[in-house]
Amino acid sequence: HLRVPAEEQQSGRERQGVLVPPNRDRLLQPLYLLPAKNGEEATMQFLLEVVDILTNYVKKTFDRSTKVLDFHHPHQLLEGMEGFNLELSDQPESLEQILVDCRDTLKYGVRTGHPRFFNQLSSGLDIIGLAGEWLTSTANTNMFTYEIAPVFVLMEQLTLKKMREMIGWPAGEGDGLFSPGGAISNMYSVMIARYKYFPEVKTKGMSAAPRLVLFTSEHSHYSIKKAGAALGFGTDNVILLSTDERGRVIPADLEAKILDVKQKGYVPLFVNATAGSTVYGAFDPINEIADICEKYNLWLHVDGAWGGGLLMSRKHRHKLNGVERANSVTWNPHKMMGVPLQCSAILVREKGILAGCNSMCAGYLFQPDKQYDVTYDTGDKAIQCGRHVDIFKFWLMWKAKGTIGFEQHIDKCLDLSQYLYNKINNREGFQMVFDGVPQHTNVCFWYIPPSLRGMSDSEERREKLHRVAPKIKAMMMESGTTMVGYQPQGNKVNFFRMVVSNAAVTQSDIDFLVDEIERLGQDL
Amino acid sequence: HLRVPAEEQQSGRERQGVLVPPNRDRLLQPLYLLPAKNGEEATMQFLLEVVDILTNYVKKTFDRSTKVLDFHHPHQLLEGMEGFNLELSDQPESLEQILVDCRDTLKYGVRTGHPRFFNQLSSGLDIIGLAGEWLTSTANTNMFTYEIAPVFVLMEQLTLKKMREMIGWPAGEGDGLFSPGGAISNMYSVMIARYKYFPEVKTKGMSAAPRLVLFTSEHSHYSIKKAGAALGFGTDNVILLSTDERGRVIPADLEAKILDVKQKGYVPLFVNATAGSTVYGAFDPINEIADICEKYNLWLHVDGAWGGGLLMSRKHRHKLNGVERANSVTWNPHKMMGVPLQCSAILVREKGILAGCNSMCAGYLFQPDKQYDVTYDTGDKAIQCGRHVDIFKFWLMWKAKGTIGFEQHIDKCLDLSQYLYNKINNREGFQMVFDGVPQHTNVCFWYIPPSLRGMSDSEERREKLHRVAPKIKAMMMESGTTMVGYQPQGNKVNFFRMVVSNAAVTQSDIDFLVDEIERLGQDL
Repeated sequence: HLRVPAEEQQSGRERQGVLVPPNRDRLLQPLYLLPAKNGEEATMQFLLEVVDILTNYVKKTFDRSTKVLDFHHPHQLLEGMEGFNLELSDQPESLEQILVDCRDTLKYGVRTGHPRFFNQLSSGLDIIGLAGEWLTSTANTNMFTYEIAPVFVLMEQLTLKKMREMIGWPAGEGDGLFSPGGAISNMYSVMIARYKYFPEVKTKGMSAAPRLVLFTSEHSHYSIKKAGAALGFGTDNVILLSTDERGRVIPADLEAKILDVKQKGYVPLFVNATAGSTVYGAFDPINEIADICEKYNLWLHVDGAWGGGLLMSRKHRHKLNGVERANSVTWNPHKMMGVPLQCSAILVREKGILAGCNSMCAGYLFQPDKQYDVTYDTGDKAIQCGRHVDIFKFWLMWKAKGTIGFEQHIDKCLDLSQYLYNKINNREGFQMVFDGVPQHTNVCFWYIPPSLRGMSDSEERREKLHRVAPKIKAMMMESGTTMVGYQPQGNKVNFFRMVVSNAAVTQSDIDFLVDEIERLGQDL
Repeated sequence: HLRVPAEEQQSGRERQGVLVPPNRDRLLQPLYLLPAKNGEEATMQFLLEVVDILTNYVKKTFDRSTKVLDFHHPHQLLEGMEGFNLELSDQPESLEQILVDCRDTLKYGVRTGHPRFFNQLSSGLDIIGLAGEWLTSTANTNMFTYEIAPVFVLMEQLTLKKMREMIGWPAGEGDGLFSPGGAISNMYSVMIARYKYFPEVKTKGMSAAPRLVLFTSEHSHYSIKKAGAALGFGTDNVILLSTDERGRVIPADLEAKILDVKQKGYVPLFVNATAGSTVYGAFDPINEIADICEKYNLWLHVDGAWGGGLLMSRKHRHKLNGVERANSVTWNPHKMMGVPLQCSAILVREKGILAGCNSMCAGYLFQPDKQYDVTYDTGDKAIQCGRHVDIFKFWLMWKAKGTIGFEQHIDKCLDLSQYLYNKINNREGFQMVFDGVPQHTNVCFWYIPPSLRGMSDSEERREKLHRVAPKIKAMMMESGTTMVGYQPQGNKVNFFRMVVSNAAVTQSDIDFLVDEIERLGQDL
């Protein structure tokens, strides 16, 4: 690793920890990096300095004595911290300043890989996945054609096939794509369902179809409604299904709502069953929903963005029983499987329908007269033109862990959640939002400060309790010790939603979270 | 940089160039990386080995004696190359094999940063941008909330404001987002145009609006049609505008088609003007189109995915005169400005309309009772939920180059294209597809092999000429020396489209391309 000799370090030119070789001032200008003539040395030195910053960040991320974040309000960061100014200017900065900018960007960010970051469904920092992303950026290519991404295109095909096998579609046949996130994957499912039943919408628009209705649980992800709005269905035509107390769709409610819609003369088109809901981690009963979809000839989509990973676990995959009956499935390896952001797949049982729905046959990109088998040019299946390479990090992690490695990771995360559940269920000051062992790693609970424990249920108590989680969260962020999500749900006031997807988490981190909530909340 | 001592290297354990420390077998398993106990050393060693592979790749990318690609057909790669097998298995691989996988993935890929890779609008490998992407992957976070991406969210805001200033909107006011590519940015423009004129479509669907019509040039990017299909307009309602011989929209044709549509009782909604078309690099006359949009009260979108970068150049920005009159603009820094993939912005003149169009106010993510100013939570403006951090590399490049650095880059690329134009215009064996100096870096030409030079125009000659570019391209790819795109356009048979966006390109690379085409094509 390039470093200047010790005597030069003492020359007073060591500023902000960046070592500046005094006899190589030309290295200080970005202009002297490759492709500049003789830019190799400066380039290598610069990249290794960056890697030094990054590897230090990685080490500290796994160190529990490091804070999860160093919180600042927007106006504070906008005013500029010492040596760190977000404003852009006409003139270039020195490489020295660029390195400072890199370090400070990380300093004022949030360590999503920290063992005590529980704030999002995506967490953790997988080292193999990280290496995969570094390679992906270095390759800097695009998924639209085999021509410029031969290896990545094949990796995507093989990996999607493996995922379809795990879903249970015969011989892993079908189709799919990696898309920029679960919301877009879900949007694809609605688009192809519409194309399947009303292909003329592609050319004639929604006026060629009757009034179409989509069904999804009131606990489902908001992206189904977003898709309804964007694709021209309208959110009024996205009907929310009632759930049981655990947040699972009640099949009878689906059937009743289908009949109601039909009676009004509208056409039920699509049902989304959620496998792992965002807040409760609930798994809708796919088989019972599939029975109804078959009876009424509806498209069945399973949104397994969060829960799809459980298909890798022999112990937990039964929670998705019936998924093989779905017409399409969303599955985000960047959530439960710990793959770096972003990595989301839309998987489709019927081959060819993605291309049928989306292809426009652009001549400049998808020339039919190429020298290789152009069925490997997958870009015309997508609504994107350029498509980021999201596959490599996932493929590399699968190589490094094997299927059994993912299984162990998932089983471990679910065990940790059960540990938390056992710990706080019936613990003084904690109240579960729903009864029973969680289906996924989501554990939803209220912390009841001592001041509210004696109070009987009333509007006043509800209002006070509603303010507890945000207050504790704000203190957590300001002290930087841990992060966990909270939200209201239906008529339930703000509660914490704990999730585990980070391989670095241990029981001691769960203990820490509980202690921290009690510490911060005791005087509220 | 960690390396084993020389005597250990001789022990025969050096396989495929990966140095294996014999006394540290535990380092060989991915299992021993962080977060494993005492995993720090193994992690650092592994990451530095990966960086060694990547930096070697970077060096070779800029070395003209390295091939652009080592072409293999899909079936060859699928059958497996020596030591490189794409199949995934249940069991984990060793770290040694993971490193081999990394090296081979790069080996069989395409060097999009090579100075002789001219195949795509996105090319080059900017070192600062690369460092930015490495950092982005290490931070591994998500743009949806300030809560987990405080620095990146602010960088995005400041950068979008700077871009709006360059467009010429007063004080840089307005709105915007980085999206996963130009096609999605263009899709946003159609969505918000619809929301502006028919907001009730969000809730009631397309049946709440009359038959709406979109206009775009026959030379425009296919994403406008894709958006028309996806959003429920139907491709029949995307009317293609005629162009002049240079590929620029004829304003009178737009007005005639608007009147025709109105006469049929449909409602013209949206006009896309292309600033830098994909094949010809044509700039539609924005001011004249804006006059018509104002007259008929239509939304004006400028697709500057490819040409937007010219706004950074005082010499060339006049080609986008009138862009300040647009309601929305697509601008992909990952194309002309050399930012790594992906980096595309949708910019909107009216503030608040993106949120109005797309927000669903998900309680679990966009809690109104956070401790910071939640207007910085931008996720609900997007159709995505999770959104990749595409801003940092761009922001860092802007810091490193300054606005003037981008200007120099753009001016240089356009100079190189003019050099190519001057070189082959009137050269024996070359024929330009359209007359005159190109507006952008696109130079479109046929290579006429000696066997066709004497032939008079006929169907036979057209058919033969149509096959020339694909044949030369196939030979280029098989010899691995260079890559350039080709396509037909309208009634014009296959021709080459040369583009320059890579900072590493010199006149000698342009000379090389011309020589190579002549060398490969002379016997056709």
